[in-house]
Amino acid sequence: MKKRVSFTPGYPHSLRLVERTQVKPIIVPGFKAVGIYAGIKKRKKKDLALIFSEIEAKVAGLFTTNQVKAAPVILDIERIKSGRGQAIVINSGNANACSGKKGFTDALEMTRITARGLGIPAEMVYVASTGVIGKHLPMDKVRKGIAKAISLLSKAGLNDAAEAIMTTDTFPKIASSRSKIGGRVITVAGIAKGAGMIYPKLSPNPLSATMLSFILTDAKIEGMALRTALKKSVENSFNSITIDGDTSTNDSVLCFANGLASNREIRSGSREFSKFQEILDSITSCLARMIVLDGEGATKFIELAVKGASTDNDAKRVAFRIANSNLVKTALNGEDPNWGRIMAAIGSSGLSINPEKVNIYFDGLMVVGKGLGLRKEKEAKRILKKKEIRITIQLGIGKGKAKVLTTDLSSEYVKINATYRT
Amino acid sequence: MKKRVSFTPGYPHSLRLVERTQVKPIIVPGFKAVGIYAGIKKRKKKDLALIFSEIEAKVAGLFTTNQVKAAPVILDIERIKSGRGQAIVINSGNANACSGKKGFTDALEMTRITARGLGIPAEMVYVASTGVIGKHLPMDKVRKGIAKAISLLSKAGLNDAAEAIMTTDTFPKIASSRSKIGGRVITVAGIAKGAGMIYPKLSPNPLSATMLSFILTDAKIEGMALRTALKKSVENSFNSITIDGDTSTNDSVLCFANGLASNREIRSGSREFSKFQEILDSITSCLARMIVLDGEGATKFIELAVKGASTDNDAKRVAFRIANSNLVKTALNGEDPNWGRIMAAIGSSGLSINPEKVNIYFDGLMVVGKGLGLRKEKEAKRILKKKEIRITIQLGIGKGKAKVLTTDLSSEYVKINATYRT
Repeated sequence: MKKRVSFTPGYPHSLRLVERTQVKPIIVPGFKAVGIYAGIKKRKKKDLALIFSEIEAKVAGLFTTNQVKAAPVILDIERIKSGRGQAIVINSGNANACSGKKGFTDALEMTRITARGLGIPAEMVYVASTGVIGKHLPMDKVRKGIAKAISLLSKAGLNDAAEAIMTTDTFPKIASSRSKIGGRVITVAGIAKGAGMIYPKLSPNPLSATMLSFILTDAKIEGMALRTALKKSVENSFNSITIDGDTSTNDSVLCFANGLASNREIRSGSREFSKFQEILDSITSCLARMIVLDGEGATKFIELAVKGASTDNDAKRVAFRIANSNLVKTALNGEDPNWGRIMAAIGSSGLSINPEKVNIYFDGLMVVGKGLGLRKEKEAKRILKKKEIRITIQLGIGKGKAKVLTTDLSSEYVKINATYRT
Repeated sequence: MKKRVSFTPGYPHSLRLVERTQVKPIIVPGFKAVGIYAGIKKRKKKDLALIFSEIEAKVAGLFTTNQVKAAPVILDIERIKSGRGQAIVINSGNANACSGKKGFTDALEMTRITARGLGIPAEMVYVASTGVIGKHLPMDKVRKGIAKAISLLSKAGLNDAAEAIMTTDTFPKIASSRSKIGGRVITVAGIAKGAGMIYPKLSPNPLSATMLSFILTDAKIEGMALRTALKKSVENSFNSITIDGDTSTNDSVLCFANGLASNREIRSGSREFSKFQEILDSITSCLARMIVLDGEGATKFIELAVKGASTDNDAKRVAFRIANSNLVKTALNGEDPNWGRIMAAIGSSGLSINPEKVNIYFDGLMVVGKGLGLRKEKEAKRILKKKEIRITIQLGIGKGKAKVLTTDLSSEYVKINATYRT
C-alpha cells in the first residue's frame, strides 16, 4: 500500500524525517484548487485556500467534539446533513472561534461569496478556519481574497492550497494515491495542517489543535459508504495522534467524492469498498503522520503501541495517557530512558492494570519486564538518540491494542506557544 | 485563621511570593524529628528524615490512586488499617517504586530497623520514599542513615526533616498553628514536598508528583474523626493542585495525633471537631500553596476558580482541564491574555457547557462576557505581568464551584525534566 502513496512536503521542517520528494502538482480529476495571500496573516504568507469540484460531490465530514465550536464548524455540521457539496473555502491566521453572531455571519458570508463567484448554491459550500481564537475576520480582505482565489483556481492548485492552510506548520502536508478499483483508475488526495493544539477527537456527531484535513477523490461511492469509510479511517489516523493534549475548537475533516472516475458505485461491504478503505486509510495515516512529524517544537517522533489491554478502547486510553504525559515527553526530549515515568502514566490512566505484568520496549529493546527495570540504560539511551522511536507497552491483560503517534515536549514548544500572538 | 498559621520557608525559591519569616524551629509536644544526609542523593543534600512520637498516636492517611504504587505506599496502606502508629521514616532521592520484591523487602527493613532502634513494634512505623523510579535503594547507606537519624532525633528537628524530604523543591515547606480547643492549647504542624509530578489524586481507599506531607498534632481526637477531617482537608488542598498533570506512584499524606494536649477527645460533629477541621484545613492549604509556589520552573502562581457548574465535581473537572492545558500554561508563561485557549480547554472537558454563558475574569477584570472577548487586551496584559494571578471562570449553569492552584509551563520546566536523572 505504502508504495502507492506519495507525500510531497515542500518545505524544510523540524524533524527532517519525511521522505523529501520533488514538489510535483497533485491533480485529482474534476477538482480545482488554489492558495493565496489575502492579508489575514500579519506576515505575507498564504492564508486563503479554495477547493472546487466541477460537479456536485458526495461529502462526508467529521468535526471537533469540543463544545466550544468555531462558527465555520457549526455551519458545516448543519450543511453536511445533505451529504453533498461542491466547494470548500478555508482561511488560516484566524480561527473565527468565540466570535459571536458576527463570526457566524462572517462564515456564512464566506460561503455565499464563494458560491456566487462559482455559480453554485451557497449550501454546496463548506468553510473552515484556523488561527487565533477570539478575533473577528478582516472581512474586507476576505471578500477580496475569495474573488482573487476564484479567478486563480487551477487543476494544479492543491499544493498551494496545502500551503495556505498552514499556521505554525513548517511544511505543507499532501498525500495522494492512484490505483485501480473495479478496473478504473481512482485518485485520492488529501491535504492537512497541524501543528499545535493537536489532540483531535473528531466525531460525525460532534460533541475537539486545530487539525484540518480535506480529502478529494474522483471515486464514485455511495454516501453512507463514504461516511463509514471516513469515520473508520479518521479513528486510526487523526483521532490517534496528540501533540500537546489540547483539543481544538476548529478540527474538521471533509472528504469530497465527485464520482468522475465512472467506476461502478462503491457500496459498503463490497470488495471495492475494502479497497477504497485501504486507500483512504493510507492517505489519512500519511497525513496524520506528517502532522506529528511537524509538531510544534518536536525533536522526536514517537510511535506508541499499547498491546494486551482488555479492549482496543482501553489500550487507546493508556496510550494517550502516556503520550500526553509532560514528564514522559520531557524525558524523551532529554533522551533519558526514564521508563519509571511511563509506568507512572500507565498507572494513572484510571483503568485497572497489573504493574507486575507490564513489559516496555524501546524499539526492539525490552527495558521493563514484568514491571521491573532490566538495567538496559546504555542501550536504551542509544535508541533514544534517534529521531524516530517506537515505544511498545505490553499490559498482559487481554487482546486490546492501539497505536498513537506523538512528539516530545521541548523548550521550543514553550517558546512557540508563549509568543504565539506576538 | 490565616494569622494563626505561620509558614517558614527557609530557602530562596523561584517565585519569592511566600512570606519570608525567620527560620525558627517548629515544635509539636511529644514529637521528635530529624533530617540528615545518608548518601542516597548524588549531591550532598539531606535525604533521610525520621519523625517519632514519644507515645503511640492515632494515624490517618491518604495515598496515591495511581495503580502503580511504590513499595512504601503498599506497606503503609496495609499498616494504616490499625489506625495507630509512632514513627515515619522517609527518604528522598529514590522512590522505591517499580522495584519489585526487593523494593518491598527494603521498605519493610526500613521500618524494622527504625522500630528496633526506637524500641517500638515494626507495625508502628510508616515509610515514604520520593525520587527516581525504578532503582533499588542503597540499603547499606539507608541502614547506617537510620541509625544516625535515631541518634540525632530532637524536639526541634522538624525543620531539618522538611529539608530532607525535598527533591526538586527549592525551599522546605512547613506550616504550624497553635490555638485553643476546649480550653487547651493544641499544636498542629505539617511538612510537605513537591515540586514535579504533581497532580495528586489521593484517596483513603487508594485506587496519584510525588507529593508527600506529614502532619503532626498533640490534639486528642477519636480515630474516625481524624480520618474524616484529613480526607476533607486533603480534598480542598493537595487534591486541588496540579503542576504538570502527572500523578505520582508515591503520593502520601499521613497525619499523627498523639493526644498529649489532654483536651477532651474530639469527636465527629462536635464544635471542637469544626475547630480542629478549620486548623487542619489552614495547614494543608498552606502547604499545598507552597508546593505550587515552588512548582518546577514556575514563574507564575495561578489560582483558578470555576463557578456556576452543575456540581462542585463538575467545576473541579473543568478547573483541572484548564490548569492542565499546556497551551493555557504556555500563554500564561508568555504573559499573553489568550483567553481563547481557556475557552477551548473549557469546551474539551467532556462536560456539557454553554459557551454563550461563559464569563472569564483575570483578577477582577472581565475579559470574556457571554463567551465573547471584551477587548481588554492591554489591561489584561498588565495583570498577567504579575507573579500571582487569579483566574475566575463563571459557567452560568448551576451553583457548583471549585478552586485549584497551578503554575505556568516554562522552558525551565522542560529543562529540569529533560535532565532530571543526569
